[in-house]
Amino acid sequence: MTQNVAILGASGYTGAELVRLIATHPSMRIVALSGDRKAGMRMGEVFPHLRHLDLPVLQKIEDIDFSAVDLAFCALPHGTSQPVIRDLPSDLKIVDLSADFRLRDPAEYEKWYGKPHVALELQKQAVYGLTEFYRDEIRSARLCAGTGCNAATGQYALRPLIEAGVIDLDDIIIDVKAGVSGAGRSLKENLLHAELSGGTMPYSAGGKHRHLGEFDQEFSKLAGRDVRVMFTPHLMPFNRGILATVYVKGDAAAVHEALAARYADEVFLEVLPFGQVASTRSIAGSNYVHVGVVADRIAGRATVTVALDNLCKGSSGQAMQNANLMLGLEETAGLMLAPVFP
Amino acid sequence: MTQNVAILGASGYTGAELVRLIATHPSMRIVALSGDRKAGMRMGEVFPHLRHLDLPVLQKIEDIDFSAVDLAFCALPHGTSQPVIRDLPSDLKIVDLSADFRLRDPAEYEKWYGKPHVALELQKQAVYGLTEFYRDEIRSARLCAGTGCNAATGQYALRPLIEAGVIDLDDIIIDVKAGVSGAGRSLKENLLHAELSGGTMPYSAGGKHRHLGEFDQEFSKLAGRDVRVMFTPHLMPFNRGILATVYVKGDAAAVHEALAARYADEVFLEVLPFGQVASTRSIAGSNYVHVGVVADRIAGRATVTVALDNLCKGSSGQAMQNANLMLGLEETAGLMLAPVFP
Amino acid sequence: MTQNVAILGASGYTGAELVRLIATHPSMRIVALSGDRKAGMRMGEVFPHLRHLDLPVLQKIEDIDFSAVDLAFCALPHGTSQPVIRDLPSDLKIVDLSADFRLRDPAEYEKWYGKPHVALELQKQAVYGLTEFYRDEIRSARLCAGTGCNAATGQYALRPLIEAGVIDLDDIIIDVKAGVSGAGRSLKENLLHAELSGGTMPYSAGGKHRHLGEFDQEFSKLAGRDVRVMFTPHLMPFNRGILATVYVKGDAAAVHEALAARYADEVFLEVLPFGQVASTRSIAGSNYVHVGVVADRIAGRATVTVALDNLCKGSSGQAMQNANLMLGLEETAGLMLAPVFP
Amino acid sequence: MTQNVAILGASGYTGAELVRLIATHPSMRIVALSGDRKAGMRMGEVFPHLRHLDLPVLQKIEDIDFSAVDLAFCALPHGTSQPVIRDLPSDLKIVDLSADFRLRDPAEYEKWYGKPHVALELQKQAVYGLTEFYRDEIRSARLCAGTGCNAATGQYALRPLIEAGVIDLDDIIIDVKAGVSGAGRSLKENLLHAELSGGTMPYSAGGKHRHLGEFDQEFSKLAGRDVRVMFTPHLMPFNRGILATVYVKGDAAAVHEALAARYADEVFLEVLPFGQVASTRSIAGSNYVHVGVVADRIAGRATVTVALDNLCKGSSGQAMQNANLMLGLEETAGLMLAPVFP
Repeated sequence: MTQNVAILGASGYTGAELVRLIATHPSMRIVALSGDRKAGMRMGEVFPHLRHLDLPVLQKIEDIDFSAVDLAFCALPHGTSQPVIRDLPSDLKIVDLSADFRLRDPAEYEKWYGKPHVALELQKQAVYGLTEFYRDEIRSARLCAGTGCNAATGQYALRPLIEAGVIDLDDIIIDVKAGVSGAGRSLKENLLHAELSGGTMPYSAGGKHRHLGEFDQEFSKLAGRDVRVMFTPHLMPFNRGILATVYVKGDAAAVHEALAARYADEVFLEVLPFGQVASTRSIAGSNYVHVGVVADRIAGRATVTVALDNLCKGSSGQAMQNANLMLGLEETAGLMLAPVFP
Repeated sequence: MTQNVAILGASGYTGAELVRLIATHPSMRIVALSGDRKAGMRMGEVFPHLRHLDLPVLQKIEDIDFSAVDLAFCALPHGTSQPVIRDLPSDLKIVDLSADFRLRDPAEYEKWYGKPHVALELQKQAVYGLTEFYRDEIRSARLCAGTGCNAATGQYALRPLIEAGVIDLDDIIIDVKAGVSGAGRSLKENLLHAELSGGTMPYSAGGKHRHLGEFDQEFSKLAGRDVRVMFTPHLMPFNRGILATVYVKGDAAAVHEALAARYADEVFLEVLPFGQVASTRSIAGSNYVHVGVVADRIAGRATVTVALDNLCKGSSGQAMQNANLMLGLEETAGLMLAPVFP
Repeated sequence: MTQNVAILGASGYTGAELVRLIATHPSMRIVALSGDRKAGMRMGEVFPHLRHLDLPVLQKIEDIDFSAVDLAFCALPHGTSQPVIRDLPSDLKIVDLSADFRLRDPAEYEKWYGKPHVALELQKQAVYGLTEFYRDEIRSARLCAGTGCNAATGQYALRPLIEAGVIDLDDIIIDVKAGVSGAGRSLKENLLHAELSGGTMPYSAGGKHRHLGEFDQEFSKLAGRDVRVMFTPHLMPFNRGILATVYVKGDAAAVHEALAARYADEVFLEVLPFGQVASTRSIAGSNYVHVGVVADRIAGRATVTVALDNLCKGSSGQAMQNANLMLGLEETAGLMLAPVFP
Repeated sequence: MTQNVAILGASGYTGAELVRLIATHPSMRIVALSGDRKAGMRMGEVFPHLRHLDLPVLQKIEDIDFSAVDLAFCALPHGTSQPVIRDLPSDLKIVDLSADFRLRDPAEYEKWYGKPHVALELQKQAVYGLTEFYRDEIRSARLCAGTGCNAATGQYALRPLIEAGVIDLDDIIIDVKAGVSGAGRSLKENLLHAELSGGTMPYSAGGKHRHLGEFDQEFSKLAGRDVRVMFTPHLMPFNRGILATVYVKGDAAAVHEALAARYADEVFLEVLPFGQVASTRSIAGSNYVHVGVVADRIAGRATVTVALDNLCKGSSGQAMQNANLMLGLEETAGLMLAPVFP
């Protein structure tokens, strides 16, 4: 049976990516699109690559009739989602792509996002959306909080290792190379082609990036003790893809084994043969994740590399996978697209 | 009913693109893959982005059992296709992606490709694969000759204008901006990232590009007289997409009308509102074609812009569309993927 | 003797390029820099690549003491230059990089720039800054008006051909591929890396680009009759460089000869051997211009390609060359930097 | 007085970069160029961006008359330099850009480069070319061995920290992002634009990269004990620039202080204000190095970022700086070019 969905915040990149995925989804139909500043425009005007699709005109959220909507994707900016979702019909299923419901502890939310949470009662209901690790909870959730794209990438490398107890928890370094679409469609000098192309630099270095809140929460919960990682993202001169190079202390073979075992039955997780490395080019445009493990020449050290598409598996693809679960559909529906190369 | 296909020459970019399209095709199954120098390798080793797919190991062509194959895609280099196809079972349907069967006149073939054709009897059977203009012939063809990617782009701009008689046939200029994947996976200095990125230059300027053979053949046939265009392709620092900027003499409104009328019922052809221009970013990764018409300030002159993805609609997507027709499948099967942006 | 210069509008790309050139200029010293919104900042904060240089702090223009300044480069936005220059000391030499003083006819200025000129008396004094064609006038000018970057590129291809009378004046097409730095440091969606990289599209198509005002003025003046060209610029996914592909009717050998003869003694103009094409990669970062001529297979048609660096020879390098002339310095001083490749 | 130099191996990127630097060098003249497979060609044919320069035709090395040559730059592939240099006149000064004379211990050379050294007596004379740390030895050297580009980058971050004793020597991680020109002009699939652009991946992960031989040698010598670092380079979709993100255990303020103190008098080393990060875009095209230090949220941890241009300061610029010293010229001659941005 076809499920009716709405996309709130459809004029950003994650909104467009949801539309792209739904275009070949066998049982999902878009019945409403919102885009506040662009209300009244057709999606093909905002995103010419979607002009061939027959889509509803962009509306203001308050003008949407949610009575026939089965699930709403909420792709609004951080901070905006809280009041919007609070005011939606209480029986509407929601997959939120913002950071607003990721952190369980309101103090942590305030610390990383700089202001108090305004929908705490909702935050309690929210389930963290890293599908492979919260599948059962997501299936029965009303509100699913999508993860940060860097946070997802790092967790795919590290969760199985923490669970298996094969690495030193006090010496974890996550060096991330992040495609620029993760920064959204925002008008900033450092995101201009003239400034960004042809080079790279770190940002939010030194433990300032907000996705650390997710790492802290999830890794500490898994380990049963406080875990703090070093994490430096770098802005990359490409549009799609995140590569995490994760440096750990532990036996490399055990590290590989833990990852291979944990992901053996996961459709979207590909653990490469021992000694191989992940490449963002091999997953771009898809919901797949590549995971590689290399032993270092220094005994007891390993390098784990993880690549995923920040807009797909790191955001809208993950959202779709979770929506499928929440709607009782095949989990992989609409998500089996192969990566685009070259 | 599922159709069994083979891909000959699967280790090149067009081969990989065929696999990508078949990955979500509802009724096509790959039963054989060839790659001479890479025989014995798995596709995931040759193209890591395809490693999640369950595919046959690469074989030598002579080792393939064609008895259970319904159709073979032939993605071999120019010149190689002729003897290979000549030796295939005579009841096997074939979609050839090379240049070997595009030109009807053996003298023209020899002129543009530098050696005599060695399978002239097959060339007679071959149907030119520009789907929207040869659909009926393709449906009943045994051998379909895929077009050149630049040749397709230029023809989408010009065929309806020649048919409608709205432009001067003696003053046509096609300035093409071509993504580098069109050059294939060949090891040449000018295709290295260090040489190609960050700039542009023309190639085969002055009427030397082989796709002119197709322009000459098709435009002259349509016009009922010799038509010769100026055509300069430029090597672009991006991977997918061709933009043709076509300069014509004719009434711009009539030009737009001719294109809009001709493509009104075509699923993959999008004629933009009058005055808008096409962008390669809006079609990359898909089988769609965008066509725009702008009136010049000089009366009686117009600029037509056409964008398509050289690997998809310009090559493997076209091949798939034609294969669907030849196999009696839905023409658009496996091809409704939305473009990937950003 | 060292000449003291000021740069007004130093926080844009052309301002930064002037500073780069002066860094190795043997006899020019920067004594003042203006940047209205960034007044009070050091240049190294605005442009970290210049942080090693010992430069004046950015000021507001009204705070600059011009008494010790020999020449001011004015790199302000179009429209802003007129009132600013009008109020500068009347004995100060000025090289303006904006469009404000390029067009001799006030009606033409208003037509292309949308508002009346407010410093008409100055416009009369201004000399058009295409060095190789206005060298003597520039040497004795007080105010030199830098050309548009596309306008310079097109003129390098066409002026000698019009002068020599070797082409048809009614059938000239200039197809330009322009690096994005030409659009400046402005915050627009289409200039974001995520939107611009990986593809191309035309802009200002159909005779709407402002540099047509310069083509009209200069070509008509040269020809002694009205000349109107077709001109379509394309936004390119690279930062530096313009390639003009110019389609003309005329004998290709005569075309090549006219260009070779005209530029034989010009240091920065390199006419390539007949049959070769220009590449932006071969001139990026330098003040050199490459000019190529290819004969078409259609008799009487030729393709001229011209490549230059829009920020250097197309703007700040040209400004420096003109400033050298106006200050009685060696014309090539500070400009002999070789292109940067790869 | 003008010094006569030869460049052996001038047809590669480092050879071209040397020519670029010499083009504006006040007292160096190129009297011979070698390029074995391209002997007989002009440099402008091999590298069109150098066509405006008046340069000797490429020769075979054995055809060069070294009697009037003061210094030879040897930009040959690894392994080739040894026999070539062995056969050069024994009074000729040589700056070698290959890896052949970097490692003092022949066993280490054989371990990393896979074959025995064939010019051991020369290796004894060779001085390691990291100018800021071997200046005096270089000044009086006959043979200077240029460093690896990654090796230089990592050492600029770490040498002062090891010297000052402010970091834990057993927990050093160097994550490098390396522009593709470092791989040279070699024809490999992974260096093609179509494969490399638009993404990233690590290479030589796990302690396999040859520049580790230099790290081991230099860091151990400095520390007076064995030091082994983890080092993972990543192939970047840009042409020029290396960014090293170095993770260390130590007090961040002390780390910054050690770097600032050590480089206070170095012309090309810019230590950024505490808390800032380096960007490759800020040094590309120049001989400058940017060094940044950020304190981590975890006490006692710091991230050091270093950016330099692999072809300039990481290779040919370093070679020039060393040649200047060896020839008694101003150390910075020809090297004060400002970075090229955007």
